[in-house]
Amino acid sequence: MKKKIRVAQYGLGPIGSSIVRLMRQKDSLEIVGAIDKDPAKAGRELGEAVGAPDAPWGVLISPDAESVLEKPLDVIIHSTSSYLTSVMDQLLECIAAGCCIVSTCEELAYPFRKHPELSQKLDAAAKEEGVALVGTGVNPGFVMDKLALTLSAVAQRIDWVSAVRIVDASKRRLPLQKKIGAGMTPEEFHAQVAAGVIKHHGLPESIAMVADGLGFALDDISETIEPVIAEEIIKTEFLEVAAGQVAGVHQIARGVSGGKEKIFMELKMYVGARHPADTVVLKGEPHLTLTIPGGTHGDVATAAVVVNSIPAILAANAGLRTSRDLPLSFFPPDAKP
Amino acid sequence: MKKKIRVAQYGLGPIGSSIVRLMRQKDSLEIVGAIDKDPAKAGRELGEAVGAPDAPWGVLISPDAESVLEKPLDVIIHSTSSYLTSVMDQLLECIAAGCCIVSTCEELAYPFRKHPELSQKLDAAAKEEGVALVGTGVNPGFVMDKLALTLSAVAQRIDWVSAVRIVDASKRRLPLQKKIGAGMTPEEFHAQVAAGVIKHHGLPESIAMVADGLGFALDDISETIEPVIAEEIIKTEFLEVAAGQVAGVHQIARGVSGGKEKIFMELKMYVGARHPADTVVLKGEPHLTLTIPGGTHGDVATAAVVVNSIPAILAANAGLRTSRDLPLSFFPPDAKP
Repeated sequence: MKKKIRVAQYGLGPIGSSIVRLMRQKDSLEIVGAIDKDPAKAGRELGEAVGAPDAPWGVLISPDAESVLEKPLDVIIHSTSSYLTSVMDQLLECIAAGCCIVSTCEELAYPFRKHPELSQKLDAAAKEEGVALVGTGVNPGFVMDKLALTLSAVAQRIDWVSAVRIVDASKRRLPLQKKIGAGMTPEEFHAQVAAGVIKHHGLPESIAMVADGLGFALDDISETIEPVIAEEIIKTEFLEVAAGQVAGVHQIARGVSGGKEKIFMELKMYVGARHPADTVVLKGEPHLTLTIPGGTHGDVATAAVVVNSIPAILAANAGLRTSRDLPLSFFPPDAKP
Repeated sequence: MKKKIRVAQYGLGPIGSSIVRLMRQKDSLEIVGAIDKDPAKAGRELGEAVGAPDAPWGVLISPDAESVLEKPLDVIIHSTSSYLTSVMDQLLECIAAGCCIVSTCEELAYPFRKHPELSQKLDAAAKEEGVALVGTGVNPGFVMDKLALTLSAVAQRIDWVSAVRIVDASKRRLPLQKKIGAGMTPEEFHAQVAAGVIKHHGLPESIAMVADGLGFALDDISETIEPVIAEEIIKTEFLEVAAGQVAGVHQIARGVSGGKEKIFMELKMYVGARHPADTVVLKGEPHLTLTIPGGTHGDVATAAVVVNSIPAILAANAGLRTSRDLPLSFFPPDAKP
C-alpha cells in the first residue's frame, strides 16, 4: 500500500474550515497539521475547531507555520488572504519547506499581469524546490475562466467572450452577506468600496487567464463596482434589507484589445437575486453558450475545487501553475494516493 | 523565430477534410502532407481536394503512409475509422516514425476497458518513442466526458452522472443523415443495426472515462440502440422522412456498480429534433446541471477539438493519453509554436 498524501491547512476562516472538513472525507489524505495565528483558534484541536462530527482527530492548530512545516508534508492548502503581496512570505516559506501549494488567494489565480515580478519569484522558487503551486477556487479559478477555456476547445474561431455570474447571497453565510454590503446605505457602500473593504477579487485575473488562453493581446483590463439597490424589502435568515438600501455588489470587468471589447465579465452577488446562474458565451465559429442554472455555490464549490486540485498539483510540473494548465476533475474519496 | 509545428493528415473523409481546412488557419502549423488510399483522392492537390479557398497549396495527397512519414513531422492527425482494431497498424506506424497523434477513432478515446491489450501496446510503443497520442472529438472526447469531468471539479460528492445529447440532424450533411437511418423503415433500420452499419460509437468509452475519473468501480456498461420514429413528415435539405419512418437513432448507455446505475448517457440524433442541447447532470453535493442550449455542432466541434488538441498533445507526457488528462482549450490562430 502506498503512503497517504500528507496535507496541512494554512488559515482556518470559513473557507479553510470547510476545506478541512472535505479533506477529512478523502481516504488518501492524512491531515497532519493546521496553522492559524488567531488566538481563538491556535492551540485548539483541529477537528473540533472546524466542527467536524468525528472530532477530535488529535491534530492541534499551530499559531505559526514553522512547527507544521518541519513535518514531512506533500501539500499545503493555503487560505489566508486575497492579496498576493500579503501572502508572499507565507507561500515562499511553504515552498522552501518542499510543499506543493493549493491556495485560495484570488490574486494568485493568475498573477502574471498584475504582479509579474512576484509571479516570477514564486515560479523560480518552486522550480528550484521541485514543487508546484496554484491559486484556485470557484471564481477566480473555475466558472469564469477554466470553464470558459474548456468550452473554447470546441471552437474553431473566437471573437468575443462573456462570463456572467449571478449569485443569490440570501443562502450564503452572514459574513458574506455583510461583505457585499447588504443592508448598507448607498453612501456607506461607496465609502466601504473606497476603503477597499467591499470587493470581490478575481475578475481581472479571470480576464487575463482567458485572454492568454485564447491569444487575445489585451491593451487594458478595466473594472467597476456598483451597488445593487433593493427595490423592495428583502429578508434573509440573518438580516433585512429595506427598499433603497444596498442588496449587494455588481461588478463588471472588461478586457479590451485595439479599442474593442474582447472579454466581458459580470458578477452580481446580492440577496434576493433572481435567476442565479453562471453563463459563458463564446461568439465565433460556432456560437456557444453554456449555462449552469442556479449557479455554482460559492462556498461549497470553492472548497471542492481546492481539494479536487490536490492530485493535479502533485502531478504537475514544478513551478507556478494556474487552473488553465491543470486537467481538473473530482478527487474520488477512495482514490489511491 | 521558432519553427512551425509540422503536421500531416491521415484520412480525408468529411471530418478529415474539415480538420485540414481548420489547420490551414493556424499560423503556427505547416501542413506537410496528407494520406488517403482512395484513388479519387490520392495524387490530388490537398488544398483543392478539401475545397480550400486559397488552394492550391502545393501539397499532394499520398496513397500510402510511408512517403509522408519519412518527412520530419511533429503531429499526425488521424481520422480513418471508428474501430481501434482497424487502425492499430496505422497508429503504430505513425508512432514508429516519431510522431505525436491526435485521432478521431472513437474507440481510442478511452480504450482501456474494451481493448486493454491494445491500449497497453500503444502506450508502450509511444513511451519508447517519446511521443504521445490521444483519441478525441466532440463525442466521445468532450461533451459527454471531458466536460462532465471538468464540471465535477466543483463537486464535494458525486452519486450519479447523466449526460444527454440531443442533436438535430436536419442541419448536418447527407452522409450523416443516412448514417443514422433517416428515411428508412424500422425493419431496414434494425437490419442495418444488426449489420453494424448504424451506430454512433463512443458512449461506452465516455462512460468508462467518467467512471475512472470519478472513482466509480463499474461492474458493467450496457448499451441499447433504437430508432426514433417520425410522428409527422420531416423534410431536410437532402431528404424527406414520412410519418412512421425512421428519423434517426436513440442510443442509451448505462454504467452500473453493485446493481445500481451510476452513469446514464443518452444520445438522440435525428432529423427534426426539438430542443437540441447537451446537458450534464451531477447528483451529489452540490447538485449541478450544465447545459449547452442548441448543443455542440458535431462536425464543427469535432474538427475544433482535434486541432485544438495539438498543443496539448505536444506538451503531454509520452504515452497513450486521453482528453481526461489534457488541459484543453482553444488553439489561437497566431499562437507561437
